[in-house]
Amino acid sequence: MTSFPDPDGVVPLLRRGTVMVVVMAPGATPEDVARVVARVEAAGGETFVSTGVSRTIIGLVGDVDAFWQLDLRALPGVAAVHRISDPYKLVSRQHHPERSTVWVGSGERRVPLGPGRFTLIAGPCAVESAEQALEAAHIARSAGASLLRAGAWKQRTSPYAFPGLGVTGLEILARAGEATGMPVVTEVVDPRDVPVAAEHADMLQVGSASMASVGLLQAVAETGRPVLLERGHTATVEEWLMAAEHIAQRGNLDIVLCERGIRTFEPTTRTTPDLVAVPVAQAASHLPVVVDPSHAAGRRDLVVPLARAAIAVGADGVAVDVHPHPEDALCHGPQALHGAELRELARAVRRLPAALGRQDTPAAYPRS
Amino acid sequence: MTSFPDPDGVVPLLRRGTVMVVVMAPGATPEDVARVVARVEAAGGETFVSTGVSRTIIGLVGDVDAFWQLDLRALPGVAAVHRISDPYKLVSRQHHPERSTVWVGSGERRVPLGPGRFTLIAGPCAVESAEQALEAAHIARSAGASLLRAGAWKQRTSPYAFPGLGVTGLEILARAGEATGMPVVTEVVDPRDVPVAAEHADMLQVGSASMASVGLLQAVAETGRPVLLERGHTATVEEWLMAAEHIAQRGNLDIVLCERGIRTFEPTTRTTPDLVAVPVAQAASHLPVVVDPSHAAGRRDLVVPLARAAIAVGADGVAVDVHPHPEDALCHGPQALHGAELRELARAVRRLPAALGRQDTPAAYPRS
Amino acid sequence: MTSFPDPDGVVPLLRRGTVMVVVMAPGATPEDVARVVARVEAAGGETFVSTGVSRTIIGLVGDVDAFWQLDLRALPGVAAVHRISDPYKLVSRQHHPERSTVWVGSGERRVPLGPGRFTLIAGPCAVESAEQALEAAHIARSAGASLLRAGAWKQRTSPYAFPGLGVTGLEILARAGEATGMPVVTEVVDPRDVPVAAEHADMLQVGSASMASVGLLQAVAETGRPVLLERGHTATVEEWLMAAEHIAQRGNLDIVLCERGIRTFEPTTRTTPDLVAVPVAQAASHLPVVVDPSHAAGRRDLVVPLARAAIAVGADGVAVDVHPHPEDALCHGPQALHGAELRELARAVRRLPAALGRQDTPAAYPRS
Amino acid sequence: MTSFPDPDGVVPLLRRGTVMVVVMAPGATPEDVARVVARVEAAGGETFVSTGVSRTIIGLVGDVDAFWQLDLRALPGVAAVHRISDPYKLVSRQHHPERSTVWVGSGERRVPLGPGRFTLIAGPCAVESAEQALEAAHIARSAGASLLRAGAWKQRTSPYAFPGLGVTGLEILARAGEATGMPVVTEVVDPRDVPVAAEHADMLQVGSASMASVGLLQAVAETGRPVLLERGHTATVEEWLMAAEHIAQRGNLDIVLCERGIRTFEPTTRTTPDLVAVPVAQAASHLPVVVDPSHAAGRRDLVVPLARAAIAVGADGVAVDVHPHPEDALCHGPQALHGAELRELARAVRRLPAALGRQDTPAAYPRS
Repeated sequence: MTSFPDPDGVVPLLRRGTVMVVVMAPGATPEDVARVVARVEAAGGETFVSTGVSRTIIGLVGDVDAFWQLDLRALPGVAAVHRISDPYKLVSRQHHPERSTVWVGSGERRVPLGPGRFTLIAGPCAVESAEQALEAAHIARSAGASLLRAGAWKQRTSPYAFPGLGVTGLEILARAGEATGMPVVTEVVDPRDVPVAAEHADMLQVGSASMASVGLLQAVAETGRPVLLERGHTATVEEWLMAAEHIAQRGNLDIVLCERGIRTFEPTTRTTPDLVAVPVAQAASHLPVVVDPSHAAGRRDLVVPLARAAIAVGADGVAVDVHPHPEDALCHGPQALHGAELRELARAVRRLPAALGRQDTPAAYPRS
Repeated sequence: MTSFPDPDGVVPLLRRGTVMVVVMAPGATPEDVARVVARVEAAGGETFVSTGVSRTIIGLVGDVDAFWQLDLRALPGVAAVHRISDPYKLVSRQHHPERSTVWVGSGERRVPLGPGRFTLIAGPCAVESAEQALEAAHIARSAGASLLRAGAWKQRTSPYAFPGLGVTGLEILARAGEATGMPVVTEVVDPRDVPVAAEHADMLQVGSASMASVGLLQAVAETGRPVLLERGHTATVEEWLMAAEHIAQRGNLDIVLCERGIRTFEPTTRTTPDLVAVPVAQAASHLPVVVDPSHAAGRRDLVVPLARAAIAVGADGVAVDVHPHPEDALCHGPQALHGAELRELARAVRRLPAALGRQDTPAAYPRS
Repeated sequence: MTSFPDPDGVVPLLRRGTVMVVVMAPGATPEDVARVVARVEAAGGETFVSTGVSRTIIGLVGDVDAFWQLDLRALPGVAAVHRISDPYKLVSRQHHPERSTVWVGSGERRVPLGPGRFTLIAGPCAVESAEQALEAAHIARSAGASLLRAGAWKQRTSPYAFPGLGVTGLEILARAGEATGMPVVTEVVDPRDVPVAAEHADMLQVGSASMASVGLLQAVAETGRPVLLERGHTATVEEWLMAAEHIAQRGNLDIVLCERGIRTFEPTTRTTPDLVAVPVAQAASHLPVVVDPSHAAGRRDLVVPLARAAIAVGADGVAVDVHPHPEDALCHGPQALHGAELRELARAVRRLPAALGRQDTPAAYPRS
Repeated sequence: MTSFPDPDGVVPLLRRGTVMVVVMAPGATPEDVARVVARVEAAGGETFVSTGVSRTIIGLVGDVDAFWQLDLRALPGVAAVHRISDPYKLVSRQHHPERSTVWVGSGERRVPLGPGRFTLIAGPCAVESAEQALEAAHIARSAGASLLRAGAWKQRTSPYAFPGLGVTGLEILARAGEATGMPVVTEVVDPRDVPVAAEHADMLQVGSASMASVGLLQAVAETGRPVLLERGHTATVEEWLMAAEHIAQRGNLDIVLCERGIRTFEPTTRTTPDLVAVPVAQAASHLPVVVDPSHAAGRRDLVVPLARAAIAVGADGVAVDVHPHPEDALCHGPQALHGAELRELARAVRRLPAALGRQDTPAAYPRS
């Protein structure tokens, strides 16, 4: 074993925990190596160079984000750059090993999402009318939900599809939440709508199509409301956590991650629900992780099996669409649960977390 | 409602259940339409034409596979061709609504895979020695497995990786199965090895990299042995069922489908386990469906959560890698279970199927 | 040939050119069929029913978008719904067979993008300073560019990356465009910034991460400025055209589509440039289509080969990053061209369109 | 700059050019580090350890493939393992910087594929009859082809599709090649057919569905015939090169890589042609790279634009389907060129390589 000596005090620098490895190409010249070293040192970093004949490797010590900005890959003679440390910090479990619990709502209507619990979020995809919203809220409640979710603005692929009721929808949703004793969650799609949404809703959702919209992430963060952050259809887990980092960076750490399917080549379902992302994200981040099987699959017959699987894989909650009359729904009717499926879901929510050894009872049970 | 009249006896033809719809392009000429009609009729089909000014639609009645061969999309004026019926038949649930049970092994060692049951398949990724195989078989047994799986030939990406022990491995595996009372499953990767594999193994596995290798599918089918058919990393559910149809077509319907992850953009895990494919495949086909969480994730810490999720989503079984000394494994050590994870798996296998209302006890329990 | 009779005047309805086919499941009841018919008719549509024993098919005539809202897949007994007509209209080539030319800029600085031409768009990824922007503009001009592109706001994955200079950047960019005689293009990422961007820029870019952000698409449309619409990393060509339809619907048809790579499993390049999407989009839509090889590949050595391929596949233009000192760039330095590559690009831009028989000379040549 | 001292002679070991970096997890113990070191040293490697408080990094020197076998990721305390050197060797350009030329055929009919040239490969997807094959060969020749390709065995998704004529097809193909003065290429799908195919064909093709079938790769390698190795639909460039390494390892370096589209989420075309893979593969490997636009797109109208783009991106050749009567083709008729498209292709093949500065004239021109 060839121990790495430390005559120049490298070890203390390593304590900062941020390192990068630059691999030089076989034909790189000493000047190429010197250029990398110079740029890193100009940026306040330290380097250690391991020179062979066919390859030279340079280890970087210091602020990995500053180094990343240097775009060292662009320099002549650089073959590859490996980042060793995570690109996110505030949401990383590395520096915050305990998993977090996020509380939504206030006063009597205060609901936790986090480890050792299971929380059901339910409601209609879109608010359509006061009657529909209230009826759906009762259905959600009786299935075991403790958080009510519905959309006032919808991000639709087609300009000819129902866009939502806007502020009117927010008001209806808030009343339905009060009437059924549940805090409410609603999606925002435009930063200009965030202030009014934060007035009416207890939690703001950033949808998959907006996950990378920095302006929206910042606007949402600044309200101080808890955020339900959907994973983009094409986002890696790392990019999802980077989006969360954008929120955290503005001082808001009340973030719940929501997996809702990734885009793959398989055409049968709307997206491919990536359930393994739940334990992967929980290992990388201290934030709670829930799954939305309704939007992921887009087909009612798959929602209950997926909800069961989400519970079994360790999700901290599940978010589903319910509707009093799915066949009349203005948005995503084919995925809304009703009747028999709803009862099956309620049964799974009641029994499965316990069978899997979750110690807390779900917050979602009726409290009386 | 404009009813479709039947002066020419179209309805009886529709009983064959095979139809296709040809959509003509806006500028298609009457000659273009006539050409489609002529080709279909030359192939023994019937057509019904619905002519508008901007669009003409042609419905085809008869043998959809013969029509598909015609490549009607290639004809001038054709905008799109929609196939209405499934491209697979023997494995389709459409004509065989009852889900099937496949029996593996003979005599005392006869194990069912199918509805109402849960079956654990376990063993080392590769047979390395008689001691390792026997030890792994005992581990598998004590975790609740009723089928022993291990590889004698490995399909490796690198030519510098361990390729397996070949026939020697088969013999070792067969003895380990006998000693522990389990039928054995092994993968074949070359049609030339199929006869000898069928002599020693109770079930033959076709791996994901070979799923589309018609020669191998046919060779395996002809042995009459039950087949464990892994989904290709890039195969749609429909293509997976078409691969099963290749086997079924040769008279062998003892096929168990095995989901083991699809390739996506997400780099964290080796592949993305597609758990929703389990209920999707079970709805489309009568064949049993199992999940291999070890190969799908490639990481030990994710195997037990995924196995739980597979049970919860309704899989008829789970196949996992176990190894007496994963750190010494010659193949995929990082995914093999041992110690604590193995005990967790055994617990999940024992309790979860029952908690989910599976009526039969798993065949997988130690028989005393 | 069984002709489809028209006693009830179906043919005139088909002139509206919008149809959908509903395939009922094998076991669907007459009530299931009647329910579909009733819903369609309640929505103002007409139906024609073709009843077989194992299958019934229902053709719908009328407004396909209204039908799509009905979510007929949600109804009992429905197996599949096939849409026959395109979901987009204003940007479709079906109703507008001539390909469009979009003009950017005004007065002396007015540049066309469209068929029979080739246009080079170039500039630095981000505006960093007045000097850098002006120097990059001169480089772009000498490589044959006629449009100058640079970012004032950047949509960055990491909150720790350079976010752009904002309004100051816009002002610098406008001056650099004036000094070099080129109209300017800049990306907007937040609807709140759109008005000020439209004051300074001749064309607004919607980036891939924002392609599905309806609020941003609407805000951009309403400025009346031409729009450079990047394809989302995970968007199908159809979804890309639907995003364009969102803009067109607000009365702005001056849209140029920009292909810049899709996300796949291949890790070598940042994304996979989807060059076949150029002729596919040109066949489906009358809008011009350009390619951005710099962002698609993320590697300087691949930019020129890709630019050549984009010209050869028929792109109406190419957009590339240039930078006076790529090694000091604050954004995506490794993809910016300089020196030898830049000269190669200029050569390709000068010769290749002509060699491929483009009849017009590029608008991009220096005007003397 | 902290230089890495070499008291123990590490530098000479680095000359072997194979290194790996093991990153330990923050909480890793000294025992965890020692375990990694011990395993590597037991495998004949050397280690250098850089110990910080929050992170320890271990550099490995020696045989990277042996280290890879150790599955160090499986050891306690290991966070990540980065491989620095390429996993392939014989096909790598690292040790063989000159690009290779592969010669196909013998005597008069000897055709080169490689740098500085452009070679057109053409023929019918499947041999259907002596007449069809000969007619297609003449069409191919007149379009500028110098290699004739046609299939005797087809790897079809459906068991109900045309499987090819087998040995009869080989004989027909060989005669058509002789009659038109072109060496012939044919696909093999089963290792049992390789010997007879090698008797009749000058080059053997391994298709995308078989790219990972090690038995087939080995059987093909052993014939000594040049191999046309298609990239799997889901294979990364690295995996494609690893498949080539399987062939090279058996002593056969006459390998031509063929890009024919990768599977993505985009449904418009059969696959997404990955043209940037051409310069990527040419930079990583010394082997020639060609593109098959017919199978990649699956649509005739896209073949010529793609062929042009392939030439422009730097492909060493293009392989296309031609057929005397595409509307009667038994296999993939919609992608076969004829008439106007064929003339366009011939024109592109004649002019474009020269316009791009290829110095050699294509081997593909008629020699008389």
